[in-house]
Amino acid sequence: MPVGASTAMLGSNLSALVTMTLLAQTPPPPYYAVIFSSVRTDDDEPGYAAAAQRMMELAASQPGFLGVDSARAEMGVTVSYWTSLEAIKRWRNHAEHQQARQQGRAQWYAAFRVRIARVERDYGWPESPGQPNRRA
Amino acid sequence: MPVGASTAMLGSNLSALVTMTLLAQTPPPPYYAVIFSSVRTDDDEPGYAAAAQRMMELAASQPGFLGVDSARAEMGVTVSYWTSLEAIKRWRNHAEHQQARQQGRAQWYAAFRVRIARVERDYGWPESPGQPNRRA
Repeated sequence: MPVGASTAMLGSNLSALVTMTLLAQTPPPPYYAVIFSSVRTDDDEPGYAAAAQRMMELAASQPGFLGVDSARAEMGVTVSYWTSLEAIKRWRNHAEHQQARQQGRAQWYAAFRVRIARVERDYGWPESPGQPNRRA
Repeated sequence: MPVGASTAMLGSNLSALVTMTLLAQTPPPPYYAVIFSSVRTDDDEPGYAAAAQRMMELAASQPGFLGVDSARAEMGVTVSYWTSLEAIKRWRNHAEHQQARQQGRAQWYAAFRVRIARVERDYGWPESPGQPNRRA
């Protein structure tokens, strides 16, 4: 095989890996999702951005955290995944998280909605590395 | 009350209404959510944008559709809400939707993941108009 072809394939594989690691990698269901939909005020973008980044890192260090998918444009949609309702409740009661939520209602969000859901089935494309094909 | 104050209040109420209608307005749980997380290729932005818009409109016209929250930045997160698993299955099997999903795998998406979840609890801020306070 020419060296060029080999290098191109390596690049393509690395690119696919980077792409896939943007998406949350979760174990087979069942597990739980917290769907957080929100509309920002125009207020305090630096403070909001710093707090959002900090909450992502703090959530990721909590027991029972499985991953997160998040995007913000006209509105924000953040879905975090957890092993159990108990893990979600512990995170909800975390002191620093409670403080950030209070600031969110007071300053950062014009409106938001939180939904707690039990994930019953999932599939993807391409299939996650090391996971069997679970497409129904 | 001075006219200025009244006008300002009307403006504020209208602004709050516009903000809240960006977020999906759903009935009390239980209902179902389809969480669609994706990473785009760089390919065919106009074709993708047109199809995404068309799929939003088509989904909204299906029986059992309740609403959708969606945002795209580095990745996309779209959560659609449905009355039942049967409604989700019908939408999945819709001919035009199937065609769009095929094009998605072939051209538009570098990777995606779909999760089907049962929403068991929700709360928001501010509370939706006409809904009782369901904050737990």
